[in-house]
Amino acid sequence: MTGLQTSPHCDVTRWWLKKIYDSMGAPNIRIAVGDGEPYPTDTDDAVATVRIDGWRTLASLVLNPEIGFGEGYRDGRIDVPGDLVQFLQTTIASMPASAPGWCARLSSRWLYWLQANTRRGSARNIRHHYDLSADFYKLWLDAKLVYTCAYFPEANATLERAQIAKMDHVCRKLQLQPGEHVVEAGCGWGALALHMARHYGAKVTAFNISHEQILVARDRAKREGLEKFVEFVEDDYRNISGHYDAFVSVGMLEHIGRHNYETLGQVIHRTIGEEGRGLLHFIGRNRQHAFSPWIRKRIFPGAFAPSLAQSLEVLESWNFSVLDVENLRLHYARTLEFWLERFERAWDSVVNMYDLEFARAWRLYLAGSIAAFRVGNLQLFQIVFAGANSRQLPWTRAHLYTDEGDEKDLWIRAIS
Amino acid sequence: MTGLQTSPHCDVTRWWLKKIYDSMGAPNIRIAVGDGEPYPTDTDDAVATVRIDGWRTLASLVLNPEIGFGEGYRDGRIDVPGDLVQFLQTTIASMPASAPGWCARLSSRWLYWLQANTRRGSARNIRHHYDLSADFYKLWLDAKLVYTCAYFPEANATLERAQIAKMDHVCRKLQLQPGEHVVEAGCGWGALALHMARHYGAKVTAFNISHEQILVARDRAKREGLEKFVEFVEDDYRNISGHYDAFVSVGMLEHIGRHNYETLGQVIHRTIGEEGRGLLHFIGRNRQHAFSPWIRKRIFPGAFAPSLAQSLEVLESWNFSVLDVENLRLHYARTLEFWLERFERAWDSVVNMYDLEFARAWRLYLAGSIAAFRVGNLQLFQIVFAGANSRQLPWTRAHLYTDEGDEKDLWIRAIS
Repeated sequence: MTGLQTSPHCDVTRWWLKKIYDSMGAPNIRIAVGDGEPYPTDTDDAVATVRIDGWRTLASLVLNPEIGFGEGYRDGRIDVPGDLVQFLQTTIASMPASAPGWCARLSSRWLYWLQANTRRGSARNIRHHYDLSADFYKLWLDAKLVYTCAYFPEANATLERAQIAKMDHVCRKLQLQPGEHVVEAGCGWGALALHMARHYGAKVTAFNISHEQILVARDRAKREGLEKFVEFVEDDYRNISGHYDAFVSVGMLEHIGRHNYETLGQVIHRTIGEEGRGLLHFIGRNRQHAFSPWIRKRIFPGAFAPSLAQSLEVLESWNFSVLDVENLRLHYARTLEFWLERFERAWDSVVNMYDLEFARAWRLYLAGSIAAFRVGNLQLFQIVFAGANSRQLPWTRAHLYTDEGDEKDLWIRAIS
Repeated sequence: MTGLQTSPHCDVTRWWLKKIYDSMGAPNIRIAVGDGEPYPTDTDDAVATVRIDGWRTLASLVLNPEIGFGEGYRDGRIDVPGDLVQFLQTTIASMPASAPGWCARLSSRWLYWLQANTRRGSARNIRHHYDLSADFYKLWLDAKLVYTCAYFPEANATLERAQIAKMDHVCRKLQLQPGEHVVEAGCGWGALALHMARHYGAKVTAFNISHEQILVARDRAKREGLEKFVEFVEDDYRNISGHYDAFVSVGMLEHIGRHNYETLGQVIHRTIGEEGRGLLHFIGRNRQHAFSPWIRKRIFPGAFAPSLAQSLEVLESWNFSVLDVENLRLHYARTLEFWLERFERAWDSVVNMYDLEFARAWRLYLAGSIAAFRVGNLQLFQIVFAGANSRQLPWTRAHLYTDEGDEKDLWIRAIS
């Protein structure tokens, strides 16, 4: 049976191959089933050839392309010898912008419901990803364990430098002053909170619902002698209380679900009031679009990447002023290139730590993310905002691009 | 009758004064009717005292505060001896954020309907404002007649320098290259179009429906020897055709009406496609809010200042990538301070050219705008965007803040 279906002479398989290929927008790749001849046959300069083990896998691609491809790649039924990133990039770029099929929509909704970001749901979703051992992330992140888009002042900067530059970029955008009190929502392993305390003299209260991450962060604060300045709280952002000069959240908005934007805005408003300022850093999109169902299934349960207008729902109801938006999508592609390269070098350790399926799933996630940020399927937005009565508005953004230490002169009072 | 009503002893007048004062949020000002004692009586450090001629004017303030105040100030029934800007700033800042009364809403809707931005409506609305003689605007604008928010690299820059810096800021944000073809929608008297041609080697096609402005712009192009590079077209933005490398619009979005955002997006998309880039510069708000009904009545018929999210309706349906948003609200306050100062110096000429009511209306508009931008009632957004397949994305924004001539090295190809 299999032999018959995968034979280059089988008309049914060829018919389906053509269907799939055309529905992908005829990208410059080739698809082969079993040992059969790749389709299309007349392409010599294809970027890559994807190999599918048999007709069952082919059928899964027809029924639900994204889940079918992700699951097939994960357990080795689908393989892409050669440059996986280039293959995904070519594929994503040629994909028609139309809505996914009914089956994908249905499974996406089903996942959505299953992964709802109630307080308990959020905890479950976040633990799925961030409670993986820090030892795993240490295999391929930078030394400070910063698991968000870096900022490369020069395109050829190292990852370590770019992560520090990102933290400085955030602090400068917030115009942090010594003695100010910052609240951070979703603090990872604590790198930014510790950076703000050490280099900007800020007092920081940082929230995270990942138990594993909080333990690591607290340990780092102790070892760095910063416990008096940085408090790591294992709790949901919805439970933030107290008054702060600034609110910062790097890489959390993607995880809270759109139905919680109003709540997040409320939390920010009760935290910094009409006078404070804040920064949101998150993965977004050019326009409304559902998140990849496979990424939601295997990597980031509950994830949603908003359009810029959607993300502003957090801020507009509370009359916050948007001061600055920067799109760093190419910086995320570069960051992910570093991560994937290190991940590949640590391949055997990852397989030993988990298993081959886990390693293949994560490779696909990293490679697919590089492709999506390069092509523009995903964006990375940093929004700087201020309360309606904030008196601290930077006159220009030039201070972000100079190395001068004292930036106080660059501030003016909005109302003299 | 009048004597009775305006007497400091008249209880009815005092009752209404208190009502009005409280509904304004009890700002640090005083209100007096006729020669009566100002209310509140216990304030010695009030920023200003507003004088109202009699009970009829007082009643107009009760029924429709904004129109009542604007019309009363315009024809001298209301006066604000002393610092008008400071008075308006204090008043706007203390005003509760709640919706205006039914009467204001009604008249606002009536005006809205009357001023609809159909093609004929737009032409009527724009001519109301921009077909005023250029000689009038020459009295108080900069030498190049730039009638939009300037950009002050240093807070103490002159207006002339700041308007040139604004045009450079726009061109740098667009990363204009010699030989590129730009389309400008709403070009005023042509300053930006001529600047792009002269200093960046661009070819420009610039649209405007103000006949007076187009005549002046064409004359300038001829005198500056730039007719071969800049074409000024007297037509509606909806009639733009052809393909361009970049789309730019400075100060037009406020005038087109929100129901035309989709059309504008369509025009931009058919103009620059998936590869081009663009810039929108416009007056906006922190959140949805109707435009001042008096400004719509007397100064800018058909005007509407969108929230940032609302403005993104222009871009998101067409899958444009937002690359950069900058809020220059304090720069508009500074720009308007220059305009008002020059306007006051030219007061007698303005009165001679039109009449006292016209001059007082424009003074109120300029002073009120300063107050609104200072307090944050109005914002000024510059959005840089690019087509989904644009290959020209700046790596960082540092190039906006250096004086290096050749910026080509700062560009990278999104997809290598």
